[in-house]
Amino acid sequence: MVEKDFYIDRLVVVGVGLIGGSLALALKAAGVVGKVVGVGRGLANLETALSYGIVDEITQDVAEGVKDADLVFLATPVCSLGTVTQQMMEHLKPGAILTDGGSVKQAVIDAIDPHLRDDVHFVPGHPIAGTENSGAEAAFASLYQDRRCILTPTPKTDEGALALVARMWELVGSQVVVMDVEKHDRVLAAISHLPHMVAYALVNSVGAYDRYGENILEYSAGGFRDFTRIASSDPTMWSDIALTNRDALVEMMGQFETFFAELKQDVAEGDGERLFEFFRRSKQSRDEII
Amino acid sequence: MVEKDFYIDRLVVVGVGLIGGSLALALKAAGVVGKVVGVGRGLANLETALSYGIVDEITQDVAEGVKDADLVFLATPVCSLGTVTQQMMEHLKPGAILTDGGSVKQAVIDAIDPHLRDDVHFVPGHPIAGTENSGAEAAFASLYQDRRCILTPTPKTDEGALALVARMWELVGSQVVVMDVEKHDRVLAAISHLPHMVAYALVNSVGAYDRYGENILEYSAGGFRDFTRIASSDPTMWSDIALTNRDALVEMMGQFETFFAELKQDVAEGDGERLFEFFRRSKQSRDEII
Repeated sequence: MVEKDFYIDRLVVVGVGLIGGSLALALKAAGVVGKVVGVGRGLANLETALSYGIVDEITQDVAEGVKDADLVFLATPVCSLGTVTQQMMEHLKPGAILTDGGSVKQAVIDAIDPHLRDDVHFVPGHPIAGTENSGAEAAFASLYQDRRCILTPTPKTDEGALALVARMWELVGSQVVVMDVEKHDRVLAAISHLPHMVAYALVNSVGAYDRYGENILEYSAGGFRDFTRIASSDPTMWSDIALTNRDALVEMMGQFETFFAELKQDVAEGDGERLFEFFRRSKQSRDEII
Repeated sequence: MVEKDFYIDRLVVVGVGLIGGSLALALKAAGVVGKVVGVGRGLANLETALSYGIVDEITQDVAEGVKDADLVFLATPVCSLGTVTQQMMEHLKPGAILTDGGSVKQAVIDAIDPHLRDDVHFVPGHPIAGTENSGAEAAFASLYQDRRCILTPTPKTDEGALALVARMWELVGSQVVVMDVEKHDRVLAAISHLPHMVAYALVNSVGAYDRYGENILEYSAGGFRDFTRIASSDPTMWSDIALTNRDALVEMMGQFETFFAELKQDVAEGDGERLFEFFRRSKQSRDEII
């Protein structure tokens, strides 16, 4: 059903991968977007996006791509956002809205803010959704269904632009949460960035086990495979996230180390009661969120 | 199809939960078992197993249950196996085969060996399969399909009994691997016991984060939920495993700590190249096993 209160005539998606491509598909499915332009560096990926009907036009030239855009969605790696914003700024029309899907927010705001024109409205955003796959071929229309999307407006953020971006995410099925930037970065360090670090370290520590001269990962069953799925995530994206949310992430990694060391000591001491209580508490917390 | 070379007239399953119940269902589905007797402490669970057709008879009395058994499958927590074996030993018929599904093997052998009669054959085993659910209602016939089952015979193990137990696991769809006991315990510490410790510690460290006076686990998305699925595993069973495979587990936890500390330092120093390489290596190892 077309929502009469919301329509984007010209949407530009910069970085047509899982995140950008899925938003384009979801807005098309909702019937609330006119033309979708895909901008990116890799021609092969752009052509894939075009052939899948994710976007209607493609270009590798940011300046050309954003011309006449009503809304620009930035979905390239966090470290690239400052440069990309700088390249497009003079080509945006007055009143254009710029928003992003970056997994960290303070670093994104710091990178984009210096380049902003007064008549271009930036709304920092983060849809909490994803899979371990990347590229246009990984995009699907229901990625944001029943997910949360966090928006972290700054004092400069235009209220009307914030409302419009919030409405966009609601139309693709997400629950919008407006949150302080620092809180966003700390919460995400805990629930998303830390787990990725743990998964990557786990796979590497088990993979390095060479006592028996064979790859013992071959013996792993479904539990290990599910558990380490996120260790198959894109290394470039995760280097970016780790670099741009350093302080919060290092703090959470330290907190995890404390809990893990406590558990290791209980195992070493054979303290069955404390082990049971540690596992029971964890199971209870985890069962509460599913 | 009934395999003419294999048939168990009377199978006794001690502990009719996910592991024991699924073996009973799988052998019934393969048409290679006559009567199945379920033995356990909890009457409610036994009655569930009976009503689901997992077992044909139930009893809470181990001595009565194992009478005339051709094969006894022990699927109670590892710490209980010594006592259970002692209770049943004088009631087993000559030539009876005893096998188990315990997740650690040296501790199980140490617990069972002293009680064994010369004319009862024990084959230590470990089907590498499971879910985070427990109890008879969690059992299903295809649990062991396309899984590995590790058998760890000791110098005392009868060759004929070993071959029969191996054939049983093959008939329920598993690939049987015969392995040295110590190697089993070390490999499992790495690919299964360590990941569980990591998942439990992760959930507890994130759950303890109280800076914002709300449960931040509420913000977690699919990745965190999948990643922490194994933290919903049975606390009693995992206390048991941690206590009975202490040395190998503490060693692997130490190895993980080393890798995690290295990663934390790279994050703290903002070393993008090393981070990318760490994540790339992990992704490659993980992608190779799926």
